[in-house]
Amino acid sequence: MSQPKTKTETLMQALRDRIAGRALGPGDRVPSIRRFAEVMGVSPSTVVEAYDRLAAEGMIRSRRGSGFYVAAANIPPMKVAQMGPPRARDIDPFWVSRQALNAGPGTLQPGCGWLPEDWMPQEALRKGLRALAKSGGAVLTSYASAQGSDALLRVLQTRFAEENLPVAPDQVMLTGSASQAMDLICRLLLNPGDTVLVDDPGYFNFHALLRAHRVHVISVPYGPDGPDPHAFAAAMQQTPRLYITNSALHNPTGATISPQNAHRVLSLAAAHDLTIVEDETFADLEPEPSPRLAVLDGLNRVLRIGGFSKTLSASLRCGYIAGRADWIEALVDLQVATSFGGPSPAAAELLAGVLIGGGYRKHLTNLHRRLATARKRATAQLALLGIAPLIRPRGGFYLWCRFSDGIDTGEIARRCVADGVILAPGNVFSPSENADRCMRFNVAQMDNPHIYVALKKAMA
Amino acid sequence: MSQPKTKTETLMQALRDRIAGRALGPGDRVPSIRRFAEVMGVSPSTVVEAYDRLAAEGMIRSRRGSGFYVAAANIPPMKVAQMGPPRARDIDPFWVSRQALNAGPGTLQPGCGWLPEDWMPQEALRKGLRALAKSGGAVLTSYASAQGSDALLRVLQTRFAEENLPVAPDQVMLTGSASQAMDLICRLLLNPGDTVLVDDPGYFNFHALLRAHRVHVISVPYGPDGPDPHAFAAAMQQTPRLYITNSALHNPTGATISPQNAHRVLSLAAAHDLTIVEDETFADLEPEPSPRLAVLDGLNRVLRIGGFSKTLSASLRCGYIAGRADWIEALVDLQVATSFGGPSPAAAELLAGVLIGGGYRKHLTNLHRRLATARKRATAQLALLGIAPLIRPRGGFYLWCRFSDGIDTGEIARRCVADGVILAPGNVFSPSENADRCMRFNVAQMDNPHIYVALKKAMA
Repeated sequence: MSQPKTKTETLMQALRDRIAGRALGPGDRVPSIRRFAEVMGVSPSTVVEAYDRLAAEGMIRSRRGSGFYVAAANIPPMKVAQMGPPRARDIDPFWVSRQALNAGPGTLQPGCGWLPEDWMPQEALRKGLRALAKSGGAVLTSYASAQGSDALLRVLQTRFAEENLPVAPDQVMLTGSASQAMDLICRLLLNPGDTVLVDDPGYFNFHALLRAHRVHVISVPYGPDGPDPHAFAAAMQQTPRLYITNSALHNPTGATISPQNAHRVLSLAAAHDLTIVEDETFADLEPEPSPRLAVLDGLNRVLRIGGFSKTLSASLRCGYIAGRADWIEALVDLQVATSFGGPSPAAAELLAGVLIGGGYRKHLTNLHRRLATARKRATAQLALLGIAPLIRPRGGFYLWCRFSDGIDTGEIARRCVADGVILAPGNVFSPSENADRCMRFNVAQMDNPHIYVALKKAMA
Repeated sequence: MSQPKTKTETLMQALRDRIAGRALGPGDRVPSIRRFAEVMGVSPSTVVEAYDRLAAEGMIRSRRGSGFYVAAANIPPMKVAQMGPPRARDIDPFWVSRQALNAGPGTLQPGCGWLPEDWMPQEALRKGLRALAKSGGAVLTSYASAQGSDALLRVLQTRFAEENLPVAPDQVMLTGSASQAMDLICRLLLNPGDTVLVDDPGYFNFHALLRAHRVHVISVPYGPDGPDPHAFAAAMQQTPRLYITNSALHNPTGATISPQNAHRVLSLAAAHDLTIVEDETFADLEPEPSPRLAVLDGLNRVLRIGGFSKTLSASLRCGYIAGRADWIEALVDLQVATSFGGPSPAAAELLAGVLIGGGYRKHLTNLHRRLATARKRATAQLALLGIAPLIRPRGGFYLWCRFSDGIDTGEIARRCVADGVILAPGNVFSPSENADRCMRFNVAQMDNPHIYVALKKAMA
């Protein structure tokens, strides 16, 4: 049935391939008619016909005055299956975020990336709010300085110094969140088409973020000791501009980079002029500190980012960046241009107050103990279903687990949504889509037995 | 003295021209060596030599592992003057933001874009904080839903409906600020190299933001009735993708678009498939409502953005977007990818509480009265110095004024900084740099007589 294709069909297939190969993701603008005609050496009217037919198929859609975009949810599943190897298109990197952020009351969330509200230091936050209500007017009504609240910046400098990482005042800034910190860095250092190295598996929102930057993403397998050293060395041949990683309880695996691996990664980075962004969002959930790229490197080619959402409050929206002073200066300007500043100064004052208060260390000690218990319990319950952790994490709330052969965790996740259980199937973390037998569980969100009932039913 | 140039000198001049013509701004990455060599048809080693010499001149600077960047502050003024027509390079669009956000205590800020803290509803905010301290744990500790706090979204829908602008629940979202709202829209709708139309004069941070998006900015003169209709029609020939404007007390002029002009702009936009972003940040400072593009258009090709920083609190960091449902859906995903959500849910609840409370309308009435008095007083004081408003605004805190012939307001601003007075010289608002005799004053920040003393001294 290999009939010769018309020019229009060739164009349609070319665009389908780019979508199937993820060069274009849902919501991305497809090339303009003029540009695509030039590139493919056809007339604009041929491109118009191809786009119209793809729009009729639901593959792309037209937006008045703005060209054509890759359709999001409304790509017909049947068509997608015909596009090449089957892909869980409806479980894309946005899937977990959307499901978890928009979950209704009563939904169970073993797939989410945060602690239940009653695990958070609510009393300290309430006390901070009452203190704010008595504070001077400026912090309640005015913009912050461009770098952010002095009080919180000083807390960060002190914490970094305790790790033997000296950070000058012009080397640190606040941002609206850890995600926004990553976004600002990508805006400063990346151009569309640049190559970026990520972990496989790795945090799905990094992938969504990089898609928004239109860069070429390559990945390195991430195991119990961190990124695979041979794969990392081999990836250098593709001259990535950035390596983006989680340190201190890697998301989703919970793994910790070994000292040898950390040194090796930094040596390769130096040899290949690679910049590293190390996200330490989960650092405070570590019972014992682990090797940190930023510390070993002394903030030379590593940028450290983090936030307070995992142990303090996700509601206060605050992150930070520490790095070279010239980069920080440019990042501060970029944040002013794009958000007119970073986090709420009121929120930053509140966070600084809680972090300085003696109760925060005690809160962390309690969290570590409570998480160890929850991890043990969830591991035992999952074992009854034949689900086993691939890595035994030293702390935190994630368990990266493997299901039995023949089970597609994307399908399990879809079935469980109907039962009011939001899961985080492996492939949303895997750029190579090699993790369809894996799933990330949040042990702090797994008290309710209905989760295991729903899992068992979905696996049947 | 027209000696034939070497290849290296030609390259150097080409890059100097791009910087002088603002195709490349301070902090922008210059083309990679390989790419520039290809484009200019020379060997990479020639580009290396040209870049090294420009770096030695201080025009660009090298960042290890990241290529070369256009130098910011350290462009030697003498060299800049040689680049073409003289430009106030050190008073770029970032100048006012940086000066005003980082001003030390005791600095006077007639150039800033906000009200003094004691003009803001501090008691209502304190009451809101006390209420938050008693609220449920989720709002203090958890992420918001992807669209943002329901309570505040409902307040916005109600307000819009009162303007005869019906907005469905899927047509509105919260953002981290009005600036971030604009940024998200630019990320969704623009590609590098697209043409964007702005007002001249217009809000300087729009220009900084557009520079970060690497788009081509064209401008239309903005007068007492809004954008000049003939210039607007002529600009359509350059097929701009977006028109970005302030409605309701335009920044910096304080002008209000006339109904005829609003209709004309929308008709031209429809005829040329132009999308409009209308920022109504200053809307609540209007004593009487003015024509609004979003209302006339019914959110078809106009996106409405705004925030709460000018009348309620700049510390709480919250903005919004209203527009077509398919755009809002894509913008919500983009905000999740780049910031993992919008504003603090705690802040949004607090804002909703203050807006619903009966005191807010009264607060606005007081503000309007107080601003009318301040405007009158500042106008009289400025008149003594020969400084006159070009437009008499119907409300708000801006006065767009003209100085006598021969006075460069950039130079006045530089001199006044030394006297502890931060001003907003005309050219930071003017893409065409035609406003060196103008200056924007904030009448709410002009009580202190030292401001007029410093101005007089600087003009002498």
